[in-house]
Amino acid sequence: MQKWKKNIRDIEPYVPGEQPQSSNIIKLNTNESPFAPSPQVKKAIEKYDYEKLRLYPSFVCKELKGALKDIYNVEEDEIFLGNGSDEVLALCFMTFFNSGKKILFPDITYSFYDVWCRLFNIDFERVPLNDDFCIVKEDYYNENGGVVITNPNAPTAIYMEVSEIEDIVKNNDDVIVIVDEAYIDFGGKSAVELIHKYDNVVVVQTYSKSRNLAGIRLGFAMANRELINALEAVKNSFNSYTVSSLSQVIAAASARDVEYFEKCVNEIITAREWTVEELSRLGFETLPSKANFIFTTNKSISAKELFDFLKSKGIYVRYFNKPRIDQYLRITIGTKEQMEELIKAVKEFLNK
Amino acid sequence: MQKWKKNIRDIEPYVPGEQPQSSNIIKLNTNESPFAPSPQVKKAIEKYDYEKLRLYPSFVCKELKGALKDIYNVEEDEIFLGNGSDEVLALCFMTFFNSGKKILFPDITYSFYDVWCRLFNIDFERVPLNDDFCIVKEDYYNENGGVVITNPNAPTAIYMEVSEIEDIVKNNDDVIVIVDEAYIDFGGKSAVELIHKYDNVVVVQTYSKSRNLAGIRLGFAMANRELINALEAVKNSFNSYTVSSLSQVIAAASARDVEYFEKCVNEIITAREWTVEELSRLGFETLPSKANFIFTTNKSISAKELFDFLKSKGIYVRYFNKPRIDQYLRITIGTKEQMEELIKAVKEFLNK
Repeated sequence: MQKWKKNIRDIEPYVPGEQPQSSNIIKLNTNESPFAPSPQVKKAIEKYDYEKLRLYPSFVCKELKGALKDIYNVEEDEIFLGNGSDEVLALCFMTFFNSGKKILFPDITYSFYDVWCRLFNIDFERVPLNDDFCIVKEDYYNENGGVVITNPNAPTAIYMEVSEIEDIVKNNDDVIVIVDEAYIDFGGKSAVELIHKYDNVVVVQTYSKSRNLAGIRLGFAMANRELINALEAVKNSFNSYTVSSLSQVIAAASARDVEYFEKCVNEIITAREWTVEELSRLGFETLPSKANFIFTTNKSISAKELFDFLKSKGIYVRYFNKPRIDQYLRITIGTKEQMEELIKAVKEFLNK
Repeated sequence: MQKWKKNIRDIEPYVPGEQPQSSNIIKLNTNESPFAPSPQVKKAIEKYDYEKLRLYPSFVCKELKGALKDIYNVEEDEIFLGNGSDEVLALCFMTFFNSGKKILFPDITYSFYDVWCRLFNIDFERVPLNDDFCIVKEDYYNENGGVVITNPNAPTAIYMEVSEIEDIVKNNDDVIVIVDEAYIDFGGKSAVELIHKYDNVVVVQTYSKSRNLAGIRLGFAMANRELINALEAVKNSFNSYTVSSLSQVIAAASARDVEYFEKCVNEIITAREWTVEELSRLGFETLPSKANFIFTTNKSISAKELFDFLKSKGIYVRYFNKPRIDQYLRITIGTKEQMEELIKAVKEFLNK
């Protein structure tokens, strides 16, 4: 063994869904949007003066923060931007979870949380969801080093009311509560209003899902100024410029196109409700979803076998070989046509 | 004080050069290029199908790695891409410096290194440059937890021969040696050939300087597969997708335009030599530069006063109020016309 080897960080990373390159694939495995970004994005790219790329991106990001400010009713200095919400969350973990006490998050939730804990040496405890896969707010009232709630939760898609989030925030006034709202736009209500009522809550959102812009890497956090300043200091101790100039311009253009945004989100919701209904006729039980994906099971079949069958038909969904959820599939909601193809393939599997 | 406050990370961040917004400014303070990116970048942006932005960026980055592979004579799996070389370096620090021993870097060098050490709790020792502001290779032969060399060094601009870098690598076979080559294209020779001879060296470069693309945030590391795999695992424990789809396409287009690249670099070198000569006539001593900036002093004047005067004239350069270098200015090399303006203003200051 090489002598330097013992000092190399050895870590089990987060594994994202597969990214098949073929264009014949129906890709329902990574919760991307089936729709193109806003046409305003196209215009913004065309209008952009590429010569400006010789300069570092704007440090203050005034244009983008200005656009977000109006949507969320917050001030510019209550917004923190990052290179995807994964970066924002990673920096939040580094900034806020330094008590030495265990932080709490559900046993079934976004699987990056424990990866960040291991990366940053943060103790954690997975709090079991109840038998209906719901978060029980009282389970988060014990002494802890911080709380992370995904709302709607992933991969369950189950939404929690803001009043319940508020109870968790209120009962944890000595630590920071992070609300990861990656999927909030598909029927839920953001907890962002809480940031003006409580100084210990951070709301994180992304442009990868409801904004159809996974490719630009843009996530953001909203919280009171003091928390944002602390995040900025840690970010500036890691990488001064994390959001590329073009991503800033593109996200700002998308943010301002409310009409297109609502149209896309509504089409996803309609396709979701249709899919849940169709699956129900085929014997599937689907957890109540307010996300752009569903989590579904059918007691009479093997989820893994259905997953493999769909893949052989060119339909990629997500399967987690983990306790409690190994009979479920997570299926991203695509276009109505894609969901029709999915249902057709599921029927074929059932009739084999 | 709020109860949560004691667990918030409190850190002194890296402070980048000012980013004035006025277009009347001659901006010679952050080592950006005065030239537009390659015209191929413009074409690549125009040709890009914006609908693809709905998807996550490519995980394997084949197009960009393919372009880099040919330039540096390395394999694709010997390349690691990141969101600017600052992110690449930060992830290197996390991945490679876990021995508990002090890592070594010069007392005068890129001031982000000690910020990363504090962020990741890495012990470090600043090794003094000699009286000529040169790195003395033998000073890095003692037991240590790793070595970081910027070549050419910043803000001194002084270049070290690859043979000397090799001696440092050879004499540190139990740790990782990082060679930060942000400025290597302006007259130096990359140490990248060493990665096939030694398994403990990592060479880091950026598209922010010689590629005129600071706005896209693209940096990369080259090393043997095992080190690259370790870096990938840490990256994937932090943020799965760090380089935006557009940045990948833009960097690949730029990489292939060798002719434009060489033209820009040669113009910078010519303007640099002219500037050094002119300053010498005005009594300045400039350290020998192989970078796109110079580090210069004039014993008969106060560097800070000249800095303030230039700023009042709309010419931004960089001043570091630090021991040993507080009588120096770091001046980015702009266009010939910009350097003529600089010299005019310096003359005005001297004749006051």
